[in-house]
Amino acid sequence: MSSSIGKLLTLTTFGESHGTALGGIIDGYPSGIEIDEEFIRSEMARRRPGSTELGTQRNEDDIPRILSGVFEGISTGTPIGFIIENKTQRSADYGEIAHKYRPGHADYTYDAKYGIRDYRGGGRSSGRETACRVFGGALAKLILRKEGIRVDAGVIEAGGIKAVDYKWDPPFKGPLYAPENPNLQLMEKAVKDAKMDTDSVGGIIECRISNMIPGLGDPVFDKLDATLSHAVMSIGAVKGIEFGSGFEAARKRGSENNDAMRTENGNIVFLSHNAGGILGGISNGDDIVFRAAIKPTASIAKEQLTVTDELENTTISVHGRHDPAIIPRAVPVIEAMAALVIADHLLIERAYGRR
Amino acid sequence: MSSSIGKLLTLTTFGESHGTALGGIIDGYPSGIEIDEEFIRSEMARRRPGSTELGTQRNEDDIPRILSGVFEGISTGTPIGFIIENKTQRSADYGEIAHKYRPGHADYTYDAKYGIRDYRGGGRSSGRETACRVFGGALAKLILRKEGIRVDAGVIEAGGIKAVDYKWDPPFKGPLYAPENPNLQLMEKAVKDAKMDTDSVGGIIECRISNMIPGLGDPVFDKLDATLSHAVMSIGAVKGIEFGSGFEAARKRGSENNDAMRTENGNIVFLSHNAGGILGGISNGDDIVFRAAIKPTASIAKEQLTVTDELENTTISVHGRHDPAIIPRAVPVIEAMAALVIADHLLIERAYGRR
Amino acid sequence: MSSSIGKLLTLTTFGESHGTALGGIIDGYPSGIEIDEEFIRSEMARRRPGSTELGTQRNEDDIPRILSGVFEGISTGTPIGFIIENKTQRSADYGEIAHKYRPGHADYTYDAKYGIRDYRGGGRSSGRETACRVFGGALAKLILRKEGIRVDAGVIEAGGIKAVDYKWDPPFKGPLYAPENPNLQLMEKAVKDAKMDTDSVGGIIECRISNMIPGLGDPVFDKLDATLSHAVMSIGAVKGIEFGSGFEAARKRGSENNDAMRTENGNIVFLSHNAGGILGGISNGDDIVFRAAIKPTASIAKEQLTVTDELENTTISVHGRHDPAIIPRAVPVIEAMAALVIADHLLIERAYGRR
Amino acid sequence: MSSSIGKLLTLTTFGESHGTALGGIIDGYPSGIEIDEEFIRSEMARRRPGSTELGTQRNEDDIPRILSGVFEGISTGTPIGFIIENKTQRSADYGEIAHKYRPGHADYTYDAKYGIRDYRGGGRSSGRETACRVFGGALAKLILRKEGIRVDAGVIEAGGIKAVDYKWDPPFKGPLYAPENPNLQLMEKAVKDAKMDTDSVGGIIECRISNMIPGLGDPVFDKLDATLSHAVMSIGAVKGIEFGSGFEAARKRGSENNDAMRTENGNIVFLSHNAGGILGGISNGDDIVFRAAIKPTASIAKEQLTVTDELENTTISVHGRHDPAIIPRAVPVIEAMAALVIADHLLIERAYGRR
Repeated sequence: MSSSIGKLLTLTTFGESHGTALGGIIDGYPSGIEIDEEFIRSEMARRRPGSTELGTQRNEDDIPRILSGVFEGISTGTPIGFIIENKTQRSADYGEIAHKYRPGHADYTYDAKYGIRDYRGGGRSSGRETACRVFGGALAKLILRKEGIRVDAGVIEAGGIKAVDYKWDPPFKGPLYAPENPNLQLMEKAVKDAKMDTDSVGGIIECRISNMIPGLGDPVFDKLDATLSHAVMSIGAVKGIEFGSGFEAARKRGSENNDAMRTENGNIVFLSHNAGGILGGISNGDDIVFRAAIKPTASIAKEQLTVTDELENTTISVHGRHDPAIIPRAVPVIEAMAALVIADHLLIERAYGRR
Repeated sequence: MSSSIGKLLTLTTFGESHGTALGGIIDGYPSGIEIDEEFIRSEMARRRPGSTELGTQRNEDDIPRILSGVFEGISTGTPIGFIIENKTQRSADYGEIAHKYRPGHADYTYDAKYGIRDYRGGGRSSGRETACRVFGGALAKLILRKEGIRVDAGVIEAGGIKAVDYKWDPPFKGPLYAPENPNLQLMEKAVKDAKMDTDSVGGIIECRISNMIPGLGDPVFDKLDATLSHAVMSIGAVKGIEFGSGFEAARKRGSENNDAMRTENGNIVFLSHNAGGILGGISNGDDIVFRAAIKPTASIAKEQLTVTDELENTTISVHGRHDPAIIPRAVPVIEAMAALVIADHLLIERAYGRR
Repeated sequence: MSSSIGKLLTLTTFGESHGTALGGIIDGYPSGIEIDEEFIRSEMARRRPGSTELGTQRNEDDIPRILSGVFEGISTGTPIGFIIENKTQRSADYGEIAHKYRPGHADYTYDAKYGIRDYRGGGRSSGRETACRVFGGALAKLILRKEGIRVDAGVIEAGGIKAVDYKWDPPFKGPLYAPENPNLQLMEKAVKDAKMDTDSVGGIIECRISNMIPGLGDPVFDKLDATLSHAVMSIGAVKGIEFGSGFEAARKRGSENNDAMRTENGNIVFLSHNAGGILGGISNGDDIVFRAAIKPTASIAKEQLTVTDELENTTISVHGRHDPAIIPRAVPVIEAMAALVIADHLLIERAYGRR
Repeated sequence: MSSSIGKLLTLTTFGESHGTALGGIIDGYPSGIEIDEEFIRSEMARRRPGSTELGTQRNEDDIPRILSGVFEGISTGTPIGFIIENKTQRSADYGEIAHKYRPGHADYTYDAKYGIRDYRGGGRSSGRETACRVFGGALAKLILRKEGIRVDAGVIEAGGIKAVDYKWDPPFKGPLYAPENPNLQLMEKAVKDAKMDTDSVGGIIECRISNMIPGLGDPVFDKLDATLSHAVMSIGAVKGIEFGSGFEAARKRGSENNDAMRTENGNIVFLSHNAGGILGGISNGDDIVFRAAIKPTASIAKEQLTVTDELENTTISVHGRHDPAIIPRAVPVIEAMAALVIADHLLIERAYGRR
């Protein structure tokens, strides 16, 4: 199913940006977990557009309504259905895009695939779809919290400006959700400059999963890094992912890139962290570290060449309230996808009686 | 299932490097396809160790025996079982590694996960496992060939040396499977130098899927780039993947990164190719282009710090016939994983009657 | 996922009988299909309690609200989310059952499995859950309608009285949804008698899938009869299923039970129909015929021995508005499950280009 | 995948009756289980043709060769590949059936589905395919054995003769694998009579899963009875299945059919067993009891009407060494499928930390 992810813990979603509602079903969720609604609201708030001054002014009210699977505040083990109503469907803003394919968007490919398209917005490819992911991720984090596992992400590059000399001290603050560092103001400025130019920028997000357990992940096709990549690359704006030393590993020698091991107080420690916490697809107990490349927002007011759905050449300026950078909003989404994957592998691992 | 990949067209594999045999089952394969055995042999030959002068001297005889699903040279639609016998199990070479965890290998994580391990070799995490992938990929390519779709990969960086000013003119020749380019000798030299130093190097492989059909891939969790990432990241040595402009997209503005569209003879053409052939998770008809980072071979003769499986500090020198660079051997494996994913999406697309 | 069924066309559901709402997601639904809302409403009406004089007086308003996947009355190919609000949560009726396990119900097994239970009703095991199945089945029937395939079911035995000498002339009328036959009044009387005795009865439902296509179904584990059995046996009250000659096949000789074949106007015809339309798990083009055994309603006002959730012996009389026979209401549910399975296999078959 | 069954513990198979070999892959098998080869051989021996005097004289050597996943006699947690070579391919016996569709067989439906068929035998629909099921079931039983769970089946009706007044005292002895009972000789005679008449008979097999754990199974689509039905109905000759009171439930009143509950030494006991050990799809701790209807062997020497693959009318007598009744050979196959399902649900249950 294209709209489901996970094996034991699954998230299935539905909903278009301009339809009646979005929502989903979380299945395989353990019973007996306290559903901390305040925590869920705070997670949802982090991804809401308009929540940062670098973002748009839209004021979506994205609080999901839980419809099942929770009784007196505790999960019952049955599927958790949830819905997020689309209250303000300001279709008027989107009139021009009904018949012009927006560059960098999925308008053309949806038409090619389905022969029909809800032209009032991005449909399933809209960033609004990520609200369901963040809700699912919040529930997954409640599972991980009981094991002490944390999932945190932050922006480490924006508009070509890299964060330098930073401490990993999450959760990171808005507007950019980047760690404190000497370049922070330059990073924010790069976003603001793009906004001024009716243009947009991309960036890089790092995610760290800490207090990990060794033994999660499967050896061959469902390696932990493979399933994390699947989950993270399924986020619309992500164009690349790398673990540990990542693309730099290609430039290292084996003697540099292998992480030497020592014992310390009866535990195994790694003297370097090029593996990113995963060896042979299985967690080694070290922090899992990966980075994702986020492309610049495709919706820009700058005029661009494109074609109509009747294959005539034209130009387009995409107006509306769009973020000049989606990077900050992608931070909680990446955390959510990572949390869903880790929680799923944790349940699978429990099935085999080794935890 | 951790040992299966795909939805309609599936590959399930088994086998350890030092067990009796490896093999697998390809299910959901269409009937009526001519099983071109010569093509399969040539694909298998490309990944065989010892096939290039930069590789090891091992002489594995990796020709798989087809056990079912083919009748008089034609696929019958029933599962194709295959087996690759492990003829030479020179366990003696591997004696030292029985109780020492090799850095950069999965020895420790397998023990952490399973509490038991076939210590004679890498088990499931051995590169030998990829023989099954290449066989599956060869069969997938036979499906794609009927649509004219090609999948080709080549080494575009080795030991820190980038290929420059090259033409994409596959299939590329050994020993490095890199395109002809002014730096080719430097690239090969980097590998040889590492070998001299009893060390190893990594590199970057580019893969292009050409003559693509628009409309393959699913909108949300099973985006074409997400499922390709899953498949490619499941290859042992891969540490990162990026599509189109990839990590560079993070440094571009939207106006640069969006691919403008024009019509040309009634077809849509893209004036740039930053999307890498995929928009919103669905193919746009352009070539799909991705790059994968390959880490340096973990098995090196250079002495490294490590621990024993009784958690005592020690050192290790991994002897045996190991490639100083796995990059050339990874080329056909990456093609195979990409071909399996594209063929699977092609079948799914057919289910919906739009092709 | 326990809450999902299907491979390409999938139905995932959520919702407890006394929660906020029930609903689900239909994924893998083809684009371009006219969503005939009147047809959906008529299908939903057939299963509604209170729709027949033999049923309860409850007046659930079970019209599902479609939240996505349909644009201007046409399916878009994206997931169809739907919700059925629980308007009247008359928990007062159910007070006594909070801590007593109702015989024939899942109260005890839910406690054993989850350690927590929404004691206000049957939760996921409530008959109310079948509303989502009927909605999914209605959408599946819209796919089948384009191929001319029909799915019809009727009650052929009620309270021990068999329908005799009947013509298969669907759709059958309420209150019993049984074919016209000399025993019809006796069948209805058996239900009414049980009601008078504060007891309940079961029955047998036959389902026929007509105008079938040969070639649907898969040879080994996903045989058409196996997947139909999975789907139908997943309905709460069903205790058995048989295809064609079914249990009677056990009493026949091969020469009687094999269906002889002849050609007629270039088509293959079967001289008998013991196979029930399926050979080796694959449809043979004949009508598919199966029968399902429905147990008597478990909720009865008659006093029964049981235990409390603190393991004390007690008795219980289950009051409330319960059907003395669920058989008529199970008719559209069985049709729905059969339609979902056939539509799924039809899509899979299309993937292989043979239809 | 049509050739796979199970969710965490999966069996994927390949192989035609007259191909090179059959085999399969068992994935998701726990590590640390002693692979009792003698037990596996004894299970395989029970289904082998020629193992009973009522069966055929074929002497297939069906001992599977384990190729991976087991090290020094202990399961390693990696997939267990296995192969059963087809040693004697006496194709000569099968010459006539190359172009005539055998009644009661899948010859025609395979041609309809695939357009190509290995006409030397039944292909995937051959009874020989069940060898892989019995092997998988033997491994599943090794998991269940550690929990004390037993799976046993026996023939309770053959050729229309029912076993009466029998004690359930497995394992049952050949040739019929039926419990000791006054009708045993009549049952055997019914089979022999059919053989004399160049005809065949069917029968009914009962299966009991004892020492069960409450809480296995999932509430909605993956009910324990639904997944057992899927698995058992996927066996070629099975035409019906029923649980507990089964089809008789249709004739009972609720007050009779509900199983009253009492406490006894702090445990819940059921005063009757009409539910067959499953309530709401979840095991209640009682023995699981189901019965399967087995059709008479389709291959009979008696002349039958049929058609050729060029749609011409003809007659056929199926010669060769065929069992006059497959019922005894189906006994271990039904046990195997039940064991696979229960072991899979057991692993899933463990994932949720309640066992």
